[in-house]
Amino acid sequence: MEEINASIDFDRRLAPLDIEASLAHAAMLARQGIISPADADAIREGLNRIAQEIAEGRFAFRRDLEDIHMNIEARLAELAGPAAGRLHTARSRNDQVATDLRLWVVKACGRAREGLRDLQRALLDKAEAHAGTIMPGFTHMQPAQPITFGHHCLAYVEMFARDGGRFADAQARMNECPLGAAALAGTSFPIDRDMTAGALGFARPMRNSLDAVASRDFALEYLATAAIAATHLSRLAEEIVLWASPGFGFVALSDAFTTGSSIMPQKRNPDAAELIRGKTGRILGSFVALATVMKGLALAYAKDLQEDKEAVFAAADALELSLAAMAGMVADMTPDRAKMRAAADTGYPTATDLADYIARVLGKPFREAHHAAGAIVKLAEQKGVTLDRLPLADMRKFEPGLTEDVFGVLGLEASAASRASYGGTAPARVREQIAFWREKLK
Amino acid sequence: MEEINASIDFDRRLAPLDIEASLAHAAMLARQGIISPADADAIREGLNRIAQEIAEGRFAFRRDLEDIHMNIEARLAELAGPAAGRLHTARSRNDQVATDLRLWVVKACGRAREGLRDLQRALLDKAEAHAGTIMPGFTHMQPAQPITFGHHCLAYVEMFARDGGRFADAQARMNECPLGAAALAGTSFPIDRDMTAGALGFARPMRNSLDAVASRDFALEYLATAAIAATHLSRLAEEIVLWASPGFGFVALSDAFTTGSSIMPQKRNPDAAELIRGKTGRILGSFVALATVMKGLALAYAKDLQEDKEAVFAAADALELSLAAMAGMVADMTPDRAKMRAAADTGYPTATDLADYIARVLGKPFREAHHAAGAIVKLAEQKGVTLDRLPLADMRKFEPGLTEDVFGVLGLEASAASRASYGGTAPARVREQIAFWREKLK
Amino acid sequence: MEEINASIDFDRRLAPLDIEASLAHAAMLARQGIISPADADAIREGLNRIAQEIAEGRFAFRRDLEDIHMNIEARLAELAGPAAGRLHTARSRNDQVATDLRLWVVKACGRAREGLRDLQRALLDKAEAHAGTIMPGFTHMQPAQPITFGHHCLAYVEMFARDGGRFADAQARMNECPLGAAALAGTSFPIDRDMTAGALGFARPMRNSLDAVASRDFALEYLATAAIAATHLSRLAEEIVLWASPGFGFVALSDAFTTGSSIMPQKRNPDAAELIRGKTGRILGSFVALATVMKGLALAYAKDLQEDKEAVFAAADALELSLAAMAGMVADMTPDRAKMRAAADTGYPTATDLADYIARVLGKPFREAHHAAGAIVKLAEQKGVTLDRLPLADMRKFEPGLTEDVFGVLGLEASAASRASYGGTAPARVREQIAFWREKLK
Amino acid sequence: MEEINASIDFDRRLAPLDIEASLAHAAMLARQGIISPADADAIREGLNRIAQEIAEGRFAFRRDLEDIHMNIEARLAELAGPAAGRLHTARSRNDQVATDLRLWVVKACGRAREGLRDLQRALLDKAEAHAGTIMPGFTHMQPAQPITFGHHCLAYVEMFARDGGRFADAQARMNECPLGAAALAGTSFPIDRDMTAGALGFARPMRNSLDAVASRDFALEYLATAAIAATHLSRLAEEIVLWASPGFGFVALSDAFTTGSSIMPQKRNPDAAELIRGKTGRILGSFVALATVMKGLALAYAKDLQEDKEAVFAAADALELSLAAMAGMVADMTPDRAKMRAAADTGYPTATDLADYIARVLGKPFREAHHAAGAIVKLAEQKGVTLDRLPLADMRKFEPGLTEDVFGVLGLEASAASRASYGGTAPARVREQIAFWREKLK
Repeated sequence: MEEINASIDFDRRLAPLDIEASLAHAAMLARQGIISPADADAIREGLNRIAQEIAEGRFAFRRDLEDIHMNIEARLAELAGPAAGRLHTARSRNDQVATDLRLWVVKACGRAREGLRDLQRALLDKAEAHAGTIMPGFTHMQPAQPITFGHHCLAYVEMFARDGGRFADAQARMNECPLGAAALAGTSFPIDRDMTAGALGFARPMRNSLDAVASRDFALEYLATAAIAATHLSRLAEEIVLWASPGFGFVALSDAFTTGSSIMPQKRNPDAAELIRGKTGRILGSFVALATVMKGLALAYAKDLQEDKEAVFAAADALELSLAAMAGMVADMTPDRAKMRAAADTGYPTATDLADYIARVLGKPFREAHHAAGAIVKLAEQKGVTLDRLPLADMRKFEPGLTEDVFGVLGLEASAASRASYGGTAPARVREQIAFWREKLK
Repeated sequence: MEEINASIDFDRRLAPLDIEASLAHAAMLARQGIISPADADAIREGLNRIAQEIAEGRFAFRRDLEDIHMNIEARLAELAGPAAGRLHTARSRNDQVATDLRLWVVKACGRAREGLRDLQRALLDKAEAHAGTIMPGFTHMQPAQPITFGHHCLAYVEMFARDGGRFADAQARMNECPLGAAALAGTSFPIDRDMTAGALGFARPMRNSLDAVASRDFALEYLATAAIAATHLSRLAEEIVLWASPGFGFVALSDAFTTGSSIMPQKRNPDAAELIRGKTGRILGSFVALATVMKGLALAYAKDLQEDKEAVFAAADALELSLAAMAGMVADMTPDRAKMRAAADTGYPTATDLADYIARVLGKPFREAHHAAGAIVKLAEQKGVTLDRLPLADMRKFEPGLTEDVFGVLGLEASAASRASYGGTAPARVREQIAFWREKLK
Repeated sequence: MEEINASIDFDRRLAPLDIEASLAHAAMLARQGIISPADADAIREGLNRIAQEIAEGRFAFRRDLEDIHMNIEARLAELAGPAAGRLHTARSRNDQVATDLRLWVVKACGRAREGLRDLQRALLDKAEAHAGTIMPGFTHMQPAQPITFGHHCLAYVEMFARDGGRFADAQARMNECPLGAAALAGTSFPIDRDMTAGALGFARPMRNSLDAVASRDFALEYLATAAIAATHLSRLAEEIVLWASPGFGFVALSDAFTTGSSIMPQKRNPDAAELIRGKTGRILGSFVALATVMKGLALAYAKDLQEDKEAVFAAADALELSLAAMAGMVADMTPDRAKMRAAADTGYPTATDLADYIARVLGKPFREAHHAAGAIVKLAEQKGVTLDRLPLADMRKFEPGLTEDVFGVLGLEASAASRASYGGTAPARVREQIAFWREKLK
Repeated sequence: MEEINASIDFDRRLAPLDIEASLAHAAMLARQGIISPADADAIREGLNRIAQEIAEGRFAFRRDLEDIHMNIEARLAELAGPAAGRLHTARSRNDQVATDLRLWVVKACGRAREGLRDLQRALLDKAEAHAGTIMPGFTHMQPAQPITFGHHCLAYVEMFARDGGRFADAQARMNECPLGAAALAGTSFPIDRDMTAGALGFARPMRNSLDAVASRDFALEYLATAAIAATHLSRLAEEIVLWASPGFGFVALSDAFTTGSSIMPQKRNPDAAELIRGKTGRILGSFVALATVMKGLALAYAKDLQEDKEAVFAAADALELSLAAMAGMVADMTPDRAKMRAAADTGYPTATDLADYIARVLGKPFREAHHAAGAIVKLAEQKGVTLDRLPLADMRKFEPGLTEDVFGVLGLEASAASRASYGGTAPARVREQIAFWREKLK
């Protein structure tokens, strides 16, 4: 029973927050005249000393005391004597643990946002250096149209921006204080919940005491948001693994984020990218775990809720490591312009440019333009040349209206530059977006 | 292959949105001079007629045309002739389907928010009628302290408010238009994406064309938000199932939301509550499904993304049905004051009130107060009486300072009334919160 | 990078198995003449000493050495000198870690099977003591028909038997040895994989070296099986929580598996049952985690696979703790015959017995019998009596063919005894099943 | 309420099984003398006619009759008159629906096994044709060692074999009949459950009536097994998507399983592979959905269980389509020997062969051999040649013991052939395994 019941092995991470919440509670109790100034002093001094003991690794956590609250409480009794008992006035372990975890998750949201911004900055640096670097834009892993590597990087900047927005929204929503809900019904002591909420950095106290001790949707929202961010990380990780593979060869990763082989000196395994990709599982699994715990749970408090912490800690660790590793890996990686360009030039990726040109410039119906372009591509294929090397005369067989001007859209750079619609891959557009994000991420 | 490839069986739900997006696109193409006014007219008329055919159930969906876009396109070709082909100028199925689904999910967020508000109103009505109705507040399914049924209802009002907030945030975040991203890289036609975005009710066009066709985090956020709301629904559903069980007998459900037994006339099975509880699975499963699809998917478009729609539709249907059924069930249910009160009076639920009283009023250290209260409860138990029926003399054996005044906290109503801290169960506090929510939900 | 890359914090649990596998590999290398007897001796002695150091807690695990294999390898180099390097002949970390984890999971299957059998025995003891104890059989949490508590316990014996069967099947299926697959392609050394497989207790070597290093479906099957078992545990846990709640009062739990309240002496919180119920989340989440990792992973080895271990360890710990706690809790719990019987006697639970009697004995069509029974129940309800107390004359108003004989089916015990079809709740049937399981679980 | 309650839209798929079970039940009732031969005849004729009506699409399913059982029952009442009512003797919808779904899932296991075998055969054909076709064996998506394409195909044959084994085990375990459990407690009618079980092809009746109506672990096991198989399918699908990408170019897919672009004639999008990869999500999501439904569900029957069917149907459809599409795609695909071989010859993939040779043949300690090989590779890299083109003299600078004989292991074919350990990639070994599987899959 002790083994299944004790949570001290993992909830010790809450220690600094538990102490912070107790300090706020004691100060409030004293100001409201619920405990004496002397008791408040004894409690404060005791808690500060415990905080120091823990910070210095001198605190002896005991499993028989089950959880972090009891471990601190027992030590406080040694240090502060009877005053320690008064700290528990007008609160219970139910609102205490809800407060501790909420504080932890609020901070985790902040760390995630910062990690996402760092990653965005790393991507932005690469985007800037490669706003005009041609690479193949893939659909179905087949080269479809030439794009720029900067444009590709910016796609992820957008995704991580929305992830950051989600964390910000979650953080704002959860920024309410459960402390003072007591066991589940509030208390008859004349407490001041605005004071404790404020001292702990919360925007306000929670409005319903049952909800305060029974709800964990703040943790679920954190986990869901992390899981969505993890899908974005996994997509970028997958691409990096592929880009680093010789079949692509689009980027070289640095030694710091790869492992080598002493015998195959050119081999650099993208371990960090693979680990990031894999950690998606842990994070999604953590969300499923806590959602399953919460499913069908009657109010108000039940011990099932003890399962909230490990899910949150595991996901937060995985997410934060992944963000940091990804930011470092992106910063360190070296795109190979030549290989990207060569890959972009397979499969007649400017065929749609030709069709668009025939429609746009020569005013042909879309379907006809499409048909002519297809025929021209087929001929180029038979002749084994790229479109921009096919003689004009050959093209005119299928579309007599074509002039030399057409070559302006058939090259990769020309194609990319022509896609200048808002959000398009034209380097000028890409640079506009870089400027936008530079300003945002200042 | 046709069987695995065709999506028309489910994506036909997107038909009205697909037409709406095409109308906006055609109008923009015409205003930008990309297609002629005559073509635009022919397209508009054709699309309007298709919309009518679909609305009237006269449209012949064809599986060999794979998806909703091709079905509409083929019919438009019949109706509008060559103009139909020009509608596809400067767009592709990739941005088209991203736009359609986004429009659908934006609206689904709106429906979820409305459904949540209706449910909150039903709970608020019950809370108002029962702001002072005593029921047991449970921890670990054991009666812990008397609370009011109104207070309990308000706990769910809070949870559903946060769910609504999450849907609102998601809706705002996804309110960007992918249309104009074309296949993945934007287009060389001089399109006006602000115009189409505005016509479709979006706040702005998306800033990156790759992101526009490749991302589905808007759908994931919808699903995650729905999954979290579903855990709240499942908790209330679980409680209703228990409350309707004879061991509790706290509420009677109406015939409309139960099924009966012709032979056991008093039996009312809470089928609706059970179905709502069960649908949590479908909704959570849908999030897992789409998150798994997105994991490790290289940019930009891949056919895997076709799996987004069924997950979203299944979850939205389950959520909307659950919200409506729950609102109706709550509105219809009849709390049984007597049974709730009787259940609240088992297990000495005012024992903590007594301890708090000794500490608060008599100024005893919390631990001593606790000890005296425990001894008094033990005596009451031996005598087989509730605390408010134990003679004062008996209590004084353990705490001589007690006076008649103590009985003011020992009754259930007195106990509840005394928990008047902010967010507490005191009926006065509950009524304050009801007023707050009445204003919010106007 | 070190932080995301290092696995030594969790894979140290594989240490004994890693050493066992290395011992088997070294012995095989020596017998095949690939390494010298002297080298084999040095390796064996070194590994045995390392095993002892680890067992005695004297081994200094180093994070900079990343994983358990490198930690042991480095120490072996100190102890055995150049021979240590030869241990790595004809194997790689890829097949080594696959072997270690497989050994671990095979054993975990064994522990789960034993834990399930212990739990079945505890349930069987309760079933035997209560083969005739009447309780309500619920549908929709409404009493439907009287059953016996023994019958209810046996339902779980069946579920846990199937869980055990699943673990046995999984164990048999995974009982193949990856060792010798080397990095991914096998080796040119003349190794004897049958010998190592046999030494490690495997049935045979795996047949394909790529599969051996790339597959983790053995771990997925373990996790899925654990997740299914966890749903069963959660159902029993939910019932125990409800049964221990005063509204039911069906069982009293022992102090060992509950936590109390010093101030409410009668309160026993079913913490163990709640924790078991909650751990379903962790176990299901672990399956989702690893399934997500494996989704779309190209062959053969990728670092994503490092994520397999924590998922497996977390789930195994949760499952094994839950099984042990549940077995203890069931063994300790005391059913309350009177409360169960009283609950079984609400809601006219023998109404269907009456209908069946009219159909079976009087030969009336089922629909008519049903109708008459319904009318009789309604009358009993109006008179406020249970069916077995309603005068025969009253019954005859609706079904004249009834005689005194009918009372033989209207009592709870009679009803239960009458359901003597195979698998039914009749105590005689229940005792037959108990005998069957006693024999099986010997 | 009707909308959330009705299941006829999806459970109509159970119709043939519901009728089959009713036919078996009626025949048993008649043989046991519970209903008359005349009634049994009327029921049988009515049910057969309904079966025909459904098969011919003439049956009018009615939503107001909720589910398939009531739809059939109502029609039977029209066709068979009062006899129809007697069909419901000694059974209830609870055991009826459990029986129907179990029959469905038993058959689904059979279809999955057959689909897996077909896929294995397609892989085996490819393996046979390419037992000696060299391709790069990847770790971390980096070429590590040459293997053969046949060997790679066989890795999947192994995985799908285990999947088939899991379905077989699940099928055997679930092959027990719930019919006769009635509502939850069995029945007082003298039914013969062995007879109905036998008639429906089950091995035996279930041993506990509560378990029979309350358990769905047979469906969970099916879903978990499907989810594991789906991870294997997704891995092969991922590889096919990559292999078909120009960066690899390892295989050409047939038109039947790709979609093209009219304008880029050489483009073949691997839509089928992507859809298969994506369907992993649906299948895993279905398992999570049902596991969530089952979590914490008290016995015996609750309406939550209605959620079992859609999860099972959705997963089965996705799995069966995926298996068929994958088998067809594999059968149709054309490996490109030249591209595979060229890719295998990048990155000095025989470096470990050289090291193994120095250790194995020259008897050098592994570490020294490794060091010499690394130095030789570095030199080859500087000279820009593959290892088998580096002059012997160059190699001898680092390892003087080398002779011409070493070239026997430095070529790709030689390397592959040398890995002749059991399960290794040597073509001879591969052919042995092909023979083994040919025999197994006859």
